[in-house]
Parts: sequence; C-alpha cells; structure tokens
Amino acid sequence: MSESTVLVLDAEPPEPPPRLGRLTGRARILHADESNLAEQLPLADVLLVWNFSSHAVRGAWPGEGPRPRWVHTASAGVDHLMCPELAASDTVVTNARGVFDQPIAEYVAALVLALAKDLPRTLDLQRERAWEHRETRRVGGTRACVVGTGPIGRAIADTLKALGVTTALVGRTARAGVHGPDDLDRLLTRADWVVCAAPLTDDTRGMFDARRFGVMQPSARFINIGRGALVVEDDLVEALAKRWIAGAALDVFEREPLPSDSPLWTTPGLLVSPHMSGDTVGWRDELGAQFVELYEQWATGQPLANVVDKKRGYVPGH
Amino acid sequence: MSESTVLVLDAEPPEPPPRLGRLTGRARILHADESNLAEQLPLADVLLVWNFSSHAVRGAWPGEGPRPRWVHTASAGVDHLMCPELAASDTVVTNARGVFDQPIAEYVAALVLALAKDLPRTLDLQRERAWEHRETRRVGGTRACVVGTGPIGRAIADTLKALGVTTALVGRTARAGVHGPDDLDRLLTRADWVVCAAPLTDDTRGMFDARRFGVMQPSARFINIGRGALVVEDDLVEALAKRWIAGAALDVFEREPLPSDSPLWTTPGLLVSPHMSGDTVGWRDELGAQFVELYEQWATGQPLANVVDKKRGYVPGH
Repeated sequence: MSESTVLVLDAEPPEPPPRLGRLTGRARILHADESNLAEQLPLADVLLVWNFSSHAVRGAWPGEGPRPRWVHTASAGVDHLMCPELAASDTVVTNARGVFDQPIAEYVAALVLALAKDLPRTLDLQRERAWEHRETRRVGGTRACVVGTGPIGRAIADTLKALGVTTALVGRTARAGVHGPDDLDRLLTRADWVVCAAPLTDDTRGMFDARRFGVMQPSARFINIGRGALVVEDDLVEALAKRWIAGAALDVFEREPLPSDSPLWTTPGLLVSPHMSGDTVGWRDELGAQFVELYEQWATGQPLANVVDKKRGYVPGH
Repeated sequence: MSESTVLVLDAEPPEPPPRLGRLTGRARILHADESNLAEQLPLADVLLVWNFSSHAVRGAWPGEGPRPRWVHTASAGVDHLMCPELAASDTVVTNARGVFDQPIAEYVAALVLALAKDLPRTLDLQRERAWEHRETRRVGGTRACVVGTGPIGRAIADTLKALGVTTALVGRTARAGVHGPDDLDRLLTRADWVVCAAPLTDDTRGMFDARRFGVMQPSARFINIGRGALVVEDDLVEALAKRWIAGAALDVFEREPLPSDSPLWTTPGLLVSPHMSGDTVGWRDELGAQFVELYEQWATGQPLANVVDKKRGYVPGH
C-alpha cells in the first residue's frame, strides 16, 4: 500500500518529538505546532496529537475539507481535541488507553497512604527539627469510592483493594461490579476516599461541586487524577475551608500549568501536583511505541484498538 | 485463684495509663515510674511495661530477690528491657506481637510509594507555587529486600507484593520462603528497596553499616522501622552524602527523641519520622486489650501467647 502521511502535533519544547524510527519508509512524517496546525492538517492522513495539553485541534479541524482519516492522542482523555465537526466526521479517534493505568493507580495509592500516615506534616516537622509523635490512620478497612470505570479507574480500584480498602466503582450505567450514578451520593456519604478518574464529558463537567462535597464525611479525602474541569475548584476550596471534608489532592486543574497566583497552591489541606500521576520514566517511549503499533494495525487494514466513542468521549469498555 | 498484683511501668505524662478496667476484682493494679520502679518490682507478680521507650527495667530488675513471674511489654521489640538477670531467670517475657503488623506494613508502603512518586519534592514545589512536571518511578516490577521475618516483616512483604514488588525476606536462618544471612549481600546488590524490620539483638546491632550501604545500588532506598541501633547512623549519613544510595527513611533512632541538633534532621535524601510507624488511632487501647487477654491466659494457667525466646530476643515463628 502507498505511504501515508502522519502529521505530529509536537509537544512544546524542550519535550522531544515521538520516536517513530520504526515507521521509516512506511510513513511520511510531518511536524506541526499550534501555529501552523490548520494549514498542515489537510495534507495528513493521520494526526498524532503528541502535545496532549493543546486544545489547538478543535480550532484547526478542517470541517468538510480534506482531513486526516485517523486521529490518535497520546493521552487517555480526548476532551482537548473533541469538537462537533470531528465528532460528526468519519474520522476515527484513538487514545493511549493502557499506558497510564498502573502508574496512576500507584500514584493514587501513594496519595491515600501519605494522607493516612500524615506524611506532609511529618515533612513539615522535619524541617522544624521537631519530634512530634502522632497517631495515624489505618488504610485497611477504610472505604473508597472511585468514579470512572475505564482501565484507569479499574486499576485504582484493584490497587486500593489490594491494600485492604473496600472499594466501590461508579460509572455511567449500573452493571456487574459497577454502581450507576443513582448510587453515587449514597456511596459518597460513607467513603473515606473519593477518587475521581472519570473522562471529561458534558455529563461529568463540574460533577464535584458544593453539593457533592457537602454530602461527604468530614473525615473524607478527595483525589482528582482525571481532568481539572470535573471539579468546581472554588467549591472545593470552600469545602476545605469549612471543613466539610478533611483534605484533597489535585493532580489536574481547570487551567494548566496552574497559575502561580491561584489560591489552590496555598489552600490548607490541599495537595497540588503538576499533572504527573501517570508519567513514569519511559512513558513517552511507551506512548510512541503504542502509536507505532496502532499505525501498523491501521496501515494493514486491521481493526484499530482503543477506538473512542466520539459521542461519549471515551473508549467504551465492559 | 488469689488476686495477683500487676505493676504498670507508666508512660511519660501526658500519655494515659492502660485501660485495665476489665481486671477489676481480678488483679491489684500498682503504678510505677522510672524513679520508683526498683522498689515496687519485688511486690509484683506481673510487670506491664507500658512505657516501652524506657530502659529502666534493666537497671531495676531484682536479680535473685522476689520478682515478677511474668513481664509483658507493650511493644514488639524487647531490647529495652532485656538484661542477663532477666534472661537467666524463670520469669516469662511476652510482647505485643500482632498489634503493629498491618499499620507498619502500610507505613512502609506509604514510604515506598511516596519516594517512588517524588512526593516530598512535590510538597516543596507546592510551597514555592512552582509547576514542575517530573517523571516518577513505577513501583510494580521493582525489587525489595525485607530483613526480619517476624509478623511485621512478613506483613511488609505481603503488602509490597500486593503492589507488584518482587520481595525477598531475610531471616536468621534459611528456610522455606526465607533467605538466610548468607544471601543478604547478594540480595542487597539488586534491591530497589531495603527494609529493616529486624529485632535488635547482639547479632543485628549495627548490621546496616558502611559496608552494607556500599553494596546497595545507587538508586536504592533504605527504610528502617525496626530499631535505631540496627543502623550505624553516621555511616548512613555518609552513604547518602556520597550517593552510594538514593535515599532513606528512618522512623527509629539510636537516641529517641532525636536531639534537635542531630545532623539526621537535615541530611539530604533522608526522611525522618518520630517512631510512629505502628501507631494508628486506637493503638493504645489495642495494646491494653491485648494485655488483658494475656492476663486471662496467665491467671487461668493456660499457655501464654507471644512468649519471647529470651536468649534470642524475639518470639520464634515459622
């Protein structure tokens, strides 16, 4: 078959481009950045969204004109590239399903254990050279509610269960092993840990708001590794200030990088990390290798893995 | 049977005495502190060492005179009370085996995950309002070497295995599922995590010294939740300064509380916590309830659980 043209929306320097050496002679590789994406898109058969924090695809998508037949994003979420024209087109969208599951599950376990064992305070006291014994919490026997039933949510649930945490999964529809949205509030009222691992869609945007923080236990901790806009950030700050919940950790934010004047940096009880929960050493190579694998499926006419349901905004699973 | 006299070596105020209400009418309870322990000991049938950080029993033990027939310590380690006279006597010694296993295992998992995910640095950067993405480490697939095969070491190994860590246990003698001391150095050379959960005995004192830190990998992290004197602290400081290992976390120290002028507080790469790894909410009640349970065995002539081998300095297990 003829050589296809792959357009890479590059990451911001100094992040390197994907290593696509294995496609030499099998694909023509073009590179774009946000400024020239619109003019390059019509030339491409395939778009690789390597800059997964860019929203440029939405504005640059060619509509009815010549356009890529396949778009792959090096991320689990697809909210940053979805637009009505892309959703309505026959272009296939795939994501990086699978690469981040275990790293993010470990990251959530790290946060749960660090908060239970009061590790941030221990580090503060060490700086003060202060020996101050405290009683901490057992994690085994506590209850978690994980919202989001994709492979990331499931890996989080498995890891928490392995630590002895009774864990409920909540998804868009009730099914075996998964609670539906109707159960969410009841589960929130008794969870020690609420973990948000949902995709960002019209249904989930702002789902963690004042009302939902209000039904949680005063001892509950909230963790978001999904997308920033799943949370109404001002409501979370207020819930922490009013002690509606005991603490929170955010790895994702409505604006990233989080502006240095954001009140989130200094909200007591809130742990802020820079969108890194899934990014373990070698992750970019894994993402590049995953694209090469998918390219081979696509180029040889095999069914593509990780195909996103463009209406729903995620890869449908069990 | 006649009422026995239980002498409690109380903890330092403001720590409360044990709740022994269930022994009302079945035991006469006396209280001592370090200053009057020696004069009270000959009056007691049973000594409960509630102040488990005191070394006063060694100096106060009555030798050949009237003395308790049973000594229980509200701790896993017995090094703080063992002396040749007690070891040579027919007095039975028991410990708090079982109470600390799961909490300490969780604490070690918290440290392993926090170090893998660079959480201390994340907290530093949050204070600086600095958005600085880093790549972190996967924990699954790494290797741990856990020294100490009592219930605490075994619980640590089980918890690390549940996180996907390949874990080797090292004990005093090789047996099924346990490596002997001859394997230790080989295991240290390839461990990502070295966890010390050994009892403090003549054989184990100072076992983590310059030579042993020297054979570890430059990327290795060392964690001690056993006893401070298992580690040559100056050697650890030097090993960290010379980058022989990547980091360490100490929960126990040769001198406790750690003096505020100790260089350990400020050693780069060293996490210091105040001997709290096993102390989860309700731990003192659990320790008191455990003593009451043992007292019932003792008073009714049943075989006592948790009997320490006084020559070895721990409860022999599998």
